[in-house]
Amino acid sequence: MTFQFASRMQHVGPSAIRELLRLGADPDVISFGGGYPDASLFPTDALSRLFRDVLEARGATALQYTVSNGIAPLRAQIAARARRDGIACDADQVLILNGGQQGLDLVAKMMLDPGDVVITEDPTFLGALVAFAPYEPRYRAVRMDDQGMDTDDLLRVLQAGPRAKFLYTVPDFQNPTGVTMSLPRRRRLLELAREFDLLVLEDTPYRALRFEGEAPPTLKSLDTDGRVIHLGSFSKLLAPGLRLGWAIAGDELIQRLGLLKLAGDTQCGTLAMEVVSRFLDGYDLDAHVERIRRTYRRKRDVMLRTIEACFPPHIAFTRPQGGMFTWLTFPAGFDAARFMAETMLPRAKLAYVPGESFFPVAGRANHARISYSTQDEDTIVRGMTLLGGMLTEALG
Amino acid sequence: MTFQFASRMQHVGPSAIRELLRLGADPDVISFGGGYPDASLFPTDALSRLFRDVLEARGATALQYTVSNGIAPLRAQIAARARRDGIACDADQVLILNGGQQGLDLVAKMMLDPGDVVITEDPTFLGALVAFAPYEPRYRAVRMDDQGMDTDDLLRVLQAGPRAKFLYTVPDFQNPTGVTMSLPRRRRLLELAREFDLLVLEDTPYRALRFEGEAPPTLKSLDTDGRVIHLGSFSKLLAPGLRLGWAIAGDELIQRLGLLKLAGDTQCGTLAMEVVSRFLDGYDLDAHVERIRRTYRRKRDVMLRTIEACFPPHIAFTRPQGGMFTWLTFPAGFDAARFMAETMLPRAKLAYVPGESFFPVAGRANHARISYSTQDEDTIVRGMTLLGGMLTEALG
Repeated sequence: MTFQFASRMQHVGPSAIRELLRLGADPDVISFGGGYPDASLFPTDALSRLFRDVLEARGATALQYTVSNGIAPLRAQIAARARRDGIACDADQVLILNGGQQGLDLVAKMMLDPGDVVITEDPTFLGALVAFAPYEPRYRAVRMDDQGMDTDDLLRVLQAGPRAKFLYTVPDFQNPTGVTMSLPRRRRLLELAREFDLLVLEDTPYRALRFEGEAPPTLKSLDTDGRVIHLGSFSKLLAPGLRLGWAIAGDELIQRLGLLKLAGDTQCGTLAMEVVSRFLDGYDLDAHVERIRRTYRRKRDVMLRTIEACFPPHIAFTRPQGGMFTWLTFPAGFDAARFMAETMLPRAKLAYVPGESFFPVAGRANHARISYSTQDEDTIVRGMTLLGGMLTEALG
Repeated sequence: MTFQFASRMQHVGPSAIRELLRLGADPDVISFGGGYPDASLFPTDALSRLFRDVLEARGATALQYTVSNGIAPLRAQIAARARRDGIACDADQVLILNGGQQGLDLVAKMMLDPGDVVITEDPTFLGALVAFAPYEPRYRAVRMDDQGMDTDDLLRVLQAGPRAKFLYTVPDFQNPTGVTMSLPRRRRLLELAREFDLLVLEDTPYRALRFEGEAPPTLKSLDTDGRVIHLGSFSKLLAPGLRLGWAIAGDELIQRLGLLKLAGDTQCGTLAMEVVSRFLDGYDLDAHVERIRRTYRRKRDVMLRTIEACFPPHIAFTRPQGGMFTWLTFPAGFDAARFMAETMLPRAKLAYVPGESFFPVAGRANHARISYSTQDEDTIVRGMTLLGGMLTEALG
């Protein structure tokens, strides 16, 4: 038969990220592409004990349906951690999600009619563009620099209109650039949000992975009138295979997001929620995250040192203070996707993420995202040396 | 701030099922309401061993991201089980979902523009109405009898138009009525689907829970031209807290549903998929399901016998050959919701599901869904005796 799909399906096609998830699965390719955490850091033994303990002590409850917003103890623990990070909230303002990605879907579902405007950083997280696409937004993209979203450019975008349904930002160690929004920019962003009555979606999967310096406050902690929806995730802190993240927002927003969560997939996995709740009770998540931070910091140092030593000098790269990514800027006219497809993959079996698809409006071909999280230090040195050599060969 | 929500949010409000999930959580209420499986039948020990084995043998993989359609071994195992049930398919035509509920959301997301028509049974599964609501469909509801959807009435609906985007049915031990669609009706339904070029969404969470008689073939196994999307779930076979279900459909449909799955929450829990895949490898799911069937059959028998003995004779009830529910029809004018709120809950702390919200177009107040899956046999006898006594008192 021929299918008459909803019009939104015109905006839903195979994406670069899907191909990358495939590439990452090919063991022959050295991938600096995927946004995967380092699997050797997963607290496997602790989780193994906790799954056993939970199933022995309360298996019938942990395997049964539960409330759709997520089990109360875990919501309380997430709220307590958020309060320690300056966010005034309680358990009822927390909604447990299948990873942060589900928050992107549900917020778009709650807010967007076709043609509505969403403001993003330029570039922005590809997974957000993928999540928003079925709700058929138009984008306004705001320039970035090493202080994060350029709030002068944001003012220009807001003044030009039309009114945006929300602004999406990854303020800490942004995906894909690795850049962190400065405190003055955060304050100014919220000032503008108040002035233009704008909802803000703050996505913070990497926030706890800070290597140095002091963390600026979250947008949510600076939010005085309930206009920030804060997303977090256990994917980079514990393990993505558990599929657990959360939203924190005011009562009305959480209630509506909770209704959409119920409609969409009933609830998150009860057992996974119980196990993570016990982990937060019985183990020191901060100490665990400190181990991840130390490892990623070393990897970042090795990657940036090798890039400095081996890349042609006219290739720029960001110096992330945390998270998983650096962002390369090649000379104008250089096509990073083509270089990967025609040179790096066939000749070196090396992958990164070409930058073009991270731009919501006008893609720029001369960028790439490189992740230091998954590969070990030797492979990072080898990969960056290889990449640098071939770039020197190509760019002279 | 004041929020400008998407227009779809007008159709998203607190639902009866949400209240019921809450009621079910109150230990003081004897609930025959929730569609929960019997938690004492969960294979807790086996799952506990499997979580340990998987985490020990391949924890790093099982806790990491994986392909968004679901791990290949589990898709192959689901396809093999489906083939044994007469469905021609392979692993690539299987998409792993967060329970069957996510299939309802994704199919509606794929197919429905606001105002599009969906055909359902009358009554139909409330969770489907909740999932479809954000996509703003109009409904055409087709009469049911003890053979399932009345295909003469379906013909009338199809002829009256407008063309429907899909037809939704729970052919086996339907939720809420417990009724199974007969083979002649299944054949006729597909004949009409071909004649009117209609997509069919077949939801089968209870199919394996047959107590007696022979199972008619699934609609998908009778589908000669790729117009049936088949949904299944491990929630009633293993445990709902694992959040695993699946869709089976032709390549184009699975590809598009997979893109929406990726957009919506990236993937299902890797660890849960690995564990269920190992369960299917190392344990006998059919033998396990046979234990569930025997238990539910006894409970059904006890419930129906008690209803027969204690209910006023002018209350009709269905005789399900499987699944978890019987459906009560009270005399016209009787308000089952009011009776529960004013009599059963305050005087007996007993809950069922008032039937009204299962009707997509015109609610009828004189019905209730009663589940025999969760309560033990003594409680079923006590509960139905109580309910019968109070109904006798109320109805004379």
